[in-house]
Amino acid sequence: MRINYKKELEDAARTMILVHSPQVLIRLIVRMIVRKVNVHHAGILLFDQAKKSYILNVSKGKLGIKIPAGFARIDPESATIRFFTDKSFRSYTNGGALTYDKINGFLRNKNNLKKNKGLEETLLSIRNQMNLFQIQVCVPSYFQEELLGVLMLGKKIKTKTFYQKELDFFVALSHDVAMALRNAQIFDALQNQINHNKRMFFETTKALATTIDAKDHYTHGHTERVTRISLAMAKKLIMDHRIKVDDKFLDDLNIAALLHDIGKIGVPEHILNKNGMLNGEERTCINGHPMIGASILEPIQDLKRVVDGVKHHHERYDGRGYPDGLKGGEISLIASIIAVADTFDAMTTDRPYRPALSKTQAIEEITRGSGLQFHPLAAEIIVELHHEKSL
Amino acid sequence: MRINYKKELEDAARTMILVHSPQVLIRLIVRMIVRKVNVHHAGILLFDQAKKSYILNVSKGKLGIKIPAGFARIDPESATIRFFTDKSFRSYTNGGALTYDKINGFLRNKNNLKKNKGLEETLLSIRNQMNLFQIQVCVPSYFQEELLGVLMLGKKIKTKTFYQKELDFFVALSHDVAMALRNAQIFDALQNQINHNKRMFFETTKALATTIDAKDHYTHGHTERVTRISLAMAKKLIMDHRIKVDDKFLDDLNIAALLHDIGKIGVPEHILNKNGMLNGEERTCINGHPMIGASILEPIQDLKRVVDGVKHHHERYDGRGYPDGLKGGEISLIASIIAVADTFDAMTTDRPYRPALSKTQAIEEITRGSGLQFHPLAAEIIVELHHEKSL
Repeated sequence: MRINYKKELEDAARTMILVHSPQVLIRLIVRMIVRKVNVHHAGILLFDQAKKSYILNVSKGKLGIKIPAGFARIDPESATIRFFTDKSFRSYTNGGALTYDKINGFLRNKNNLKKNKGLEETLLSIRNQMNLFQIQVCVPSYFQEELLGVLMLGKKIKTKTFYQKELDFFVALSHDVAMALRNAQIFDALQNQINHNKRMFFETTKALATTIDAKDHYTHGHTERVTRISLAMAKKLIMDHRIKVDDKFLDDLNIAALLHDIGKIGVPEHILNKNGMLNGEERTCINGHPMIGASILEPIQDLKRVVDGVKHHHERYDGRGYPDGLKGGEISLIASIIAVADTFDAMTTDRPYRPALSKTQAIEEITRGSGLQFHPLAAEIIVELHHEKSL
Repeated sequence: MRINYKKELEDAARTMILVHSPQVLIRLIVRMIVRKVNVHHAGILLFDQAKKSYILNVSKGKLGIKIPAGFARIDPESATIRFFTDKSFRSYTNGGALTYDKINGFLRNKNNLKKNKGLEETLLSIRNQMNLFQIQVCVPSYFQEELLGVLMLGKKIKTKTFYQKELDFFVALSHDVAMALRNAQIFDALQNQINHNKRMFFETTKALATTIDAKDHYTHGHTERVTRISLAMAKKLIMDHRIKVDDKFLDDLNIAALLHDIGKIGVPEHILNKNGMLNGEERTCINGHPMIGASILEPIQDLKRVVDGVKHHHERYDGRGYPDGLKGGEISLIASIIAVADTFDAMTTDRPYRPALSKTQAIEEITRGSGLQFHPLAAEIIVELHHEKSL
């Protein structure tokens, strides 16, 4: 079967550029080479920024190749890498590629070896490395003069030598490989940055929320537990397809749960930590915390749903809660979930005026309050989590 | 000059895919078409997700074209867009492209018009639109069946009609355009997400820090001012090349300044708000706030420099500060900058035990304290900011 290299190249470039994970991309490239060019196996030596070395990724191809232990990682100072990064060696390639046969040719030509000091040693060392991996052709992949990687091809399956046309195809392909790789690496870096920033956001919010939490002597660890329970409830509701939510729902619930009591910062310490029943005025003051919390978060763009969750976590399904006296479906799902998790945790920890209930007793209370104090779906799911022993 | 379309296409694809800003990419594509194909002008109708319509981006080319006001935005229901999204019209293109001449041909063929209801109206409407923009060829750009945009070409400069080979080139090009565009759009979305997350992180941290700040009755707005002054100092130091910092320095300084007094959450309110001089024990308690702040933030990954800034913002250059009694260069730049900004703001606001100093008086104090209480460079830069009236 004759290969239309131009067309293959175009198709390859178009496929590759759409793959935004470097690891998936490498597997794709290696598989593509093995299939299209009918070699026994192929691999890519890929530069790893973090490890400051080139890592060998090998496809098993049709015959299979085993990488000797300790050889998967190649130093930038090793002969194979230096050959492609040191410009004085550039003239010893076939339009970019380096073949096993060509190395033998160079090594037989004593004039060449005299002209370039270090060439013989370098070529012998490369030949050893190619022997080790059963490699016939090395093709460098440059992106703006930087060696991103080296394509390595094993023996061809039918004929013995590679034609110049094939080598030219590999060189052109390696150019597109470099482009696709760099593209994927940039994507990967952006994605990592997103994950990193997100983690930092959650961790910082958690640290600050926990600290504010600590001002209330009776609720040690309350914020963390309410957050954990709220997320477990939401995840189960989503998994069981009992609610339909958007991408940001869990993040918003997470932040709202972490910050649900943030408004307590506005309640004087002597009321917050009073050892005994609160009088009417003190109760009113404490009951202001959802509104205070909401007002703290209101100026932040894109936290609308979080603000709502904080503001309404003391609303009741029957409309007898505070601050707004909302009813049933008027209360957001985020607020409804936090309300249940919050009450469960309050019931199962010691308070100045009563000892903790057992989990089972608390669950019974919540079941009784379903449709009255609690959103029925939220009450139902925490009961299920309890029975699964996931609380 | 004969054009090697294959080569042009490969080069174009390789250039385009490296451009990660959709707007830059569009300008590049339009300019490329105008130059390579020798048309008077070219444009792209590009779908805008936010505006839910197609926006016309036009190059002036060699002759120039003026977009009539109100025509830059095209509804997805307009004839030109419907022609390329409604599959029943697909057979009326030249392998994908639609030419002005072809439209006229179809309109003369009454059989065609009878076969497909709505065709005549659609074609007349498209012809009007093409007349308006002086367009000869429309080429759709699909990405996985989704119409991302339409390339629009004006008249050729030398000959009158477009050859089929040219139209084929445009169709192939438009495929790569779609790929590059989608790639750039994904980049853009990731970049936006990064900016969005970062803003949310800073805003939330600021909201929580300001709230904690508010517990200390005498320091209203302190956190915001210290943050503003610290950043102004650092930016000036960087602009004047007097310090060399990494990418994250300003972000870390920003967070550290926002959170420098976070440890005050651990100081009882009656000490924090005491109206009069503090006794030894109370002073010791307040002086614990840098350590408390650091311990709150310590569990957060990647905030090492922030933790350090919070912990050491009461160290003194001469080693007589707290909590660690660090000296000179042992104190980080972030802590040194915050120390100066913090003292400046404390001096220029009223305190229970003394009225505010004027800015000039405070700057004189800082000058006197340079090399003793303050890092000389940090002291120097706040003095300069004062003289520039930037404080």
